Amino acid sequence: MFRHVVMVRFSEDMTDEQKDALRAGLGRLPDVIPEIRTYRFGDDVRLNEGNFDFVVTADFDDAGGYLAYRDHPDHRKLVEGLMAPFVIKRAAVQFEWSAALPPDLPG
Amino acid sequence: MFRHVVMVRFSEDMTDEQKDALRAGLGRLPDVIPEIRTYRFGDDVRLNEGNFDFVVTADFDDAGGYLAYRDHPDHRKLVEGLMAPFVIKRAAVQFEWSAALPPDLPG
Repeated sequence: MFRHVVMVRFSEDMTDEQKDALRAGLGRLPDVIPEIRTYRFGDDVRLNEGNFDFVVTADFDDAGGYLAYRDHPDHRKLVEGLMAPFVIKRAAVQFEWSAALPPDLPG
Repeated sequence: MFRHVVMVRFSEDMTDEQKDALRAGLGRLPDVIPEIRTYRFGDDVRLNEGNFDFVVTADFDDAGGYLAYRDHPDHRKLVEGLMAPFVIKRAAVQFEWSAALPPDLPG
């Protein structure tokens, strides 16, 4: 399995309505991009100081599935229209399950 | 469910042996911290420019499970001894599953 993780810090002028539109758009992506296996996103719960604001984690069978998602026009349109204009910091990693891990626990 | 995500960029003087020791230590945490439901970590696969180097994603039943992990002495010792000395950038988010999401896909 292959996991994509991206987190962002938003500018202060992003409104709640704009955040709702972003969340709604993200929630529709698994319906239009069949390569997505698991898709989770959410706002930081503010337990720790200095955190970023928002994160998306997306799982795929392999790197090819991730690239199909990354370059899918519906994803690009969403990112460019509803996300990128408000992003002041961004951090991302794509990784594959480590073989050193014990078998997956339920989750 | 509650997910913790942290990604880091390492200093260039971190050796492969030091990275192996970090991975081995992380791989043991699910055995000693029962609150961990799913634990995955790995190196960025270098598909995209500007990414961070390494990520950990950890799932818990709730915020209490995450806090037990965050403050567990074995976790603290690992972070302080094998990770923090080499971290030049760090980004973290903790979030809960969004109710706006469709039911989980298998993954």
